Amino acid sequence: MIDVAIIGASGYTGLELIKILINHPRFNITYIANSEGDTNIEALHPSLLGIINTDVDKANITDIVKSSSLVFLALPHKTSMNFVSKLLDYDIKVVDLSGDYRLELNTYEKFYTAHIDKNNLQNAVYGLPEYYKDKIKKSSLVANPGCYPTATLLALLPFIDYIDTSAPIFIDAKSGVSGAGKKLSDNTSYVNINENIFAYTPIKHRHSPEIAEKILKLTDKSVKINFIPHLIPITRGMLISIYATLKDNIEPIDILKDRYKNENMIRVRENPVTIKDVAGTNYCDIFATTNDNAIFINSSIDNLLRGASSQAVVNANILCDFNEDMGINHIAYVP
Amino acid sequence: MIDVAIIGASGYTGLELIKILINHPRFNITYIANSEGDTNIEALHPSLLGIINTDVDKANITDIVKSSSLVFLALPHKTSMNFVSKLLDYDIKVVDLSGDYRLELNTYEKFYTAHIDKNNLQNAVYGLPEYYKDKIKKSSLVANPGCYPTATLLALLPFIDYIDTSAPIFIDAKSGVSGAGKKLSDNTSYVNINENIFAYTPIKHRHSPEIAEKILKLTDKSVKINFIPHLIPITRGMLISIYATLKDNIEPIDILKDRYKNENMIRVRENPVTIKDVAGTNYCDIFATTNDNAIFINSSIDNLLRGASSQAVVNANILCDFNEDMGINHIAYVP
Amino acid sequence: MIDVAIIGASGYTGLELIKILINHPRFNITYIANSEGDTNIEALHPSLLGIINTDVDKANITDIVKSSSLVFLALPHKTSMNFVSKLLDYDIKVVDLSGDYRLELNTYEKFYTAHIDKNNLQNAVYGLPEYYKDKIKKSSLVANPGCYPTATLLALLPFIDYIDTSAPIFIDAKSGVSGAGKKLSDNTSYVNINENIFAYTPIKHRHSPEIAEKILKLTDKSVKINFIPHLIPITRGMLISIYATLKDNIEPIDILKDRYKNENMIRVRENPVTIKDVAGTNYCDIFATTNDNAIFINSSIDNLLRGASSQAVVNANILCDFNEDMGINHIAYVP
Amino acid sequence: MIDVAIIGASGYTGLELIKILINHPRFNITYIANSEGDTNIEALHPSLLGIINTDVDKANITDIVKSSSLVFLALPHKTSMNFVSKLLDYDIKVVDLSGDYRLELNTYEKFYTAHIDKNNLQNAVYGLPEYYKDKIKKSSLVANPGCYPTATLLALLPFIDYIDTSAPIFIDAKSGVSGAGKKLSDNTSYVNINENIFAYTPIKHRHSPEIAEKILKLTDKSVKINFIPHLIPITRGMLISIYATLKDNIEPIDILKDRYKNENMIRVRENPVTIKDVAGTNYCDIFATTNDNAIFINSSIDNLLRGASSQAVVNANILCDFNEDMGINHIAYVP
Repeated sequence: MIDVAIIGASGYTGLELIKILINHPRFNITYIANSEGDTNIEALHPSLLGIINTDVDKANITDIVKSSSLVFLALPHKTSMNFVSKLLDYDIKVVDLSGDYRLELNTYEKFYTAHIDKNNLQNAVYGLPEYYKDKIKKSSLVANPGCYPTATLLALLPFIDYIDTSAPIFIDAKSGVSGAGKKLSDNTSYVNINENIFAYTPIKHRHSPEIAEKILKLTDKSVKINFIPHLIPITRGMLISIYATLKDNIEPIDILKDRYKNENMIRVRENPVTIKDVAGTNYCDIFATTNDNAIFINSSIDNLLRGASSQAVVNANILCDFNEDMGINHIAYVP
Repeated sequence: MIDVAIIGASGYTGLELIKILINHPRFNITYIANSEGDTNIEALHPSLLGIINTDVDKANITDIVKSSSLVFLALPHKTSMNFVSKLLDYDIKVVDLSGDYRLELNTYEKFYTAHIDKNNLQNAVYGLPEYYKDKIKKSSLVANPGCYPTATLLALLPFIDYIDTSAPIFIDAKSGVSGAGKKLSDNTSYVNINENIFAYTPIKHRHSPEIAEKILKLTDKSVKINFIPHLIPITRGMLISIYATLKDNIEPIDILKDRYKNENMIRVRENPVTIKDVAGTNYCDIFATTNDNAIFINSSIDNLLRGASSQAVVNANILCDFNEDMGINHIAYVP
Repeated sequence: MIDVAIIGASGYTGLELIKILINHPRFNITYIANSEGDTNIEALHPSLLGIINTDVDKANITDIVKSSSLVFLALPHKTSMNFVSKLLDYDIKVVDLSGDYRLELNTYEKFYTAHIDKNNLQNAVYGLPEYYKDKIKKSSLVANPGCYPTATLLALLPFIDYIDTSAPIFIDAKSGVSGAGKKLSDNTSYVNINENIFAYTPIKHRHSPEIAEKILKLTDKSVKINFIPHLIPITRGMLISIYATLKDNIEPIDILKDRYKNENMIRVRENPVTIKDVAGTNYCDIFATTNDNAIFINSSIDNLLRGASSQAVVNANILCDFNEDMGINHIAYVP
Repeated sequence: MIDVAIIGASGYTGLELIKILINHPRFNITYIANSEGDTNIEALHPSLLGIINTDVDKANITDIVKSSSLVFLALPHKTSMNFVSKLLDYDIKVVDLSGDYRLELNTYEKFYTAHIDKNNLQNAVYGLPEYYKDKIKKSSLVANPGCYPTATLLALLPFIDYIDTSAPIFIDAKSGVSGAGKKLSDNTSYVNINENIFAYTPIKHRHSPEIAEKILKLTDKSVKINFIPHLIPITRGMLISIYATLKDNIEPIDILKDRYKNENMIRVRENPVTIKDVAGTNYCDIFATTNDNAIFINSSIDNLLRGASSQAVVNANILCDFNEDMGINHIAYVP
């Protein structure tokens, strides 16, 4: 058994980490913390009454180090890098769910803030298992991708060679409200979301550079990403519709099946994907179809799981040389 | 006062017609029918108890002709053209909400069925008031556009001159469930829609040719429309996100404001549009923004009103030389 | 035309007042205020873009007095009584939507706070038109009832004579989320409400004494009210299920029809009521059925309209000797 | 390992059975059937793509008998008793999720239809584990209770001794839409349910006699059950609010804690219960509070799990002498 700590237990991704790790056959939760401390899991998450009642402390490096050899950081960016720099000194493995180690230094500082842990930034591995498995295995710091880039990259990467990269690529992304986090805001109040749908920060969202940068690193192709996120009236789940221009005729389903034939957490679908089929799981479902030189690529994930916490556990599994999907739920919440 | 008949009173668009016409200052409902008859409005639509209790007959040409000089047909395609051919012989004005008179003969027969009223098809005017007002005025048969083409054309047409029409145009359309009509189906059952979202008939939907054909007729430009409709878990409303490639730099908001400066049922927005701001009204809200040679155009309408019944009443107003927005509600259902 | 002011324009009930009064044939909005001022209606309520763009000032007695002869106060309790005491001095009629003038002094001070306008409290009339019409007519201060008491009293009062008042009366009330107001809170965040339902402050809610007090005043019967409010995942609307013990056999529908035969804003239903049939209107729909000595009484209203703003306008109509339902919408938002 | 069959795999409870049994440590799915056959699990339930792809046959006694020693029947009433009578002849254990074996003969024939398997009816055990564990252990036919009686009985039974049974007991029950099953109907179409809530078959629902009969058998008390079910706009989950008159002062939380201190699938709550805390689990959460001689008892369950499929697996566990909660999920789907 490996002792693990969860830092940032109050939010949705913290809750999902706890829900997965409670039943994980090889990870043992030994320390749980949030920014305030002095509470316990049942008080923070009443659904866990009778299941786990660990104390929740105010996050503290000494206690993390004493209790665990692997840490999940479910913290806001900027807070996260403070912890990472210290934890790595103690040879603790880290899966970081924030944005702090996902980008190249320049991109990060342009879209987020000044980086205070440049050294480790260089060594962080981007935690998209289907593309970085080997590097994750040798690493001790995984930057867990966000939900938008995860669902977009898994759908788009297999087609980059066939796409006319001089034409704009459009990503129409629809996210459930839990993706906006637990903090109260007008955009996440029931009355504003229910019976409504709207785009926000169109094109200027900071996931655009993350997507473009990863494509460049993995394929050497510079692409023009236009990312348009929408908020939809559902709690969890994400649907991505990608629109691009092709250079040649292709059989898109064949390309997907070929690329992912050895991956057991991606399902290629013959019909447009749905959120219901993946909510509650780590699956990314993908479908694609073409019309002359136009392609529509369509993917769905659970934003809190494949887009955050279950992917984080997969990354931890890889870090520890366990089976990738150990402790990972495959059965959707449907209906 | 003009006596009007509503044929097809059971469905959602029939109900919306009744709701508008009850309070219309110049139209007087004299005849209401559906396909079965032998019922009344309160039985069909319990929300109207105490407001209107007209009998609902089995639709019958003789009775329509006796009772009314203008008819709204809220019927399925194919059924509709049977009525139209007879009604026009009696000099009755017709607003047809079906697909039967919206397309050129060839396109219609390719995507729907054989046309049995080719003569009148030639004389029908497409009821998009902002583009066909003058023709509607002189006509006696208006083919009321569907919700998808209405929201798409109003958003896209102002930009056609600036768009590279050799590149694909993508229309990511999100519709509330009422757009699928009242007929029971798996796709409209609560459990399948709630907490879900999915695309259907991507690219192959029959609104694609309608959109392309109208653009060709109005602008002489042949465009490559890729129409991808999605069902979203809301009852009413529609959001359109159009993605296209520009030839030049433009100021999209200026272009919209200029094009629609004389139109009082289109609102140009400085931010992404929402469904809540238009649900319950005849407004089409439009926003657009660019990124180098990429453009994102965003519109929203109430699918049952601007996408069907209130637009039908606007067309009837124009046919009768009334103010375009007579009897039309401008105040959204929000919150 | 009567010049009216709306104080408290930011919230949901303020918005609904504006939506009704814009089209009212005899009321003319001359002044709109909220607690901050320095804004306008379009900024506060983007759905009203192009319809009304009045300035919104910081609420100010002098300006109210100058501009209007009737005022709607859509303010929190405690704030409201500060305005009322001053406005009445200037002979301005007031419809107060807060709780400040709804209760007897003792009850108010027990459940709310110290009252600073005891004089006017005595002269305020409880604005439930079906029971206080004559008193409202002669009054200049109407205390508009809240949504829970409105829907409960209209359903329960006709049966008080037949109910065993020594047994407990249970009111299982289900409210849409807009009833909790616009202020952000955990209880009104999308993720907590969606796919959920729960009771809150069971039995101890402060609408219990309001209901009991009005029954006592109107019927001289002292009743044991147990009021259990629930929050349900819908935006607007309220459903009340009342459970009580009967003294005798009765025909409940006959009793309802008889009591309300002269009222045109109450509809007696032969089947359980729904929210959809009343949302958007001032109707209260009522149904009842019995089982031996048990009775189930069931009512529904739009919590923001019959439960607040449209009832306020009805009260203003009565104050001004207009038709009760002048400017009031009867057509539900359905579907 | 025990080989089990699932008959009735198309509906929601069939799906939930499959989802639980896939991962059950001691049950092995060997046969799956529905009423049509000739399909497979992935086609029926696309969310299970890549997880299980067993064939689905047309239900057939010979094949059941050959393949399994325990059978779950997720069939409509009347269909179910045809299977039961034959299966028991082959010494196969049966957990029946229909209504066919839940009631005494007289009650059954009054509220359902003529019974064709009276012999076995006498020997069936009502599968409410907290009250019938010992009898289930010795039985070979378990009649799995429905969702309404399960949530009601678990909440009400501990209080029967303290309740004035000469006064009516009211059960205000709110069910998610999946409780109505997969069959298309107006009542379960999205547009009719969304933004709506309503009671149906008030008092006359056939779960009333089931509840009254079980209380009589377990406590020897004859009670006056008034059962009023409501449909609410959520997919899964059920909230029960029970209203009754007390004979004495009691401490309701203490009574609950004492009664259920040895049960690990019931949680006594200090605050009103929610659906979110139990959705996805086999828990029944219960809360109660009093006001003089009035009591409000409040329980919540997942209607498809504790109200059907997970309770069925618990019953199967007991039949096979396994731990009651073997293979049962305790972690809610929240958020």
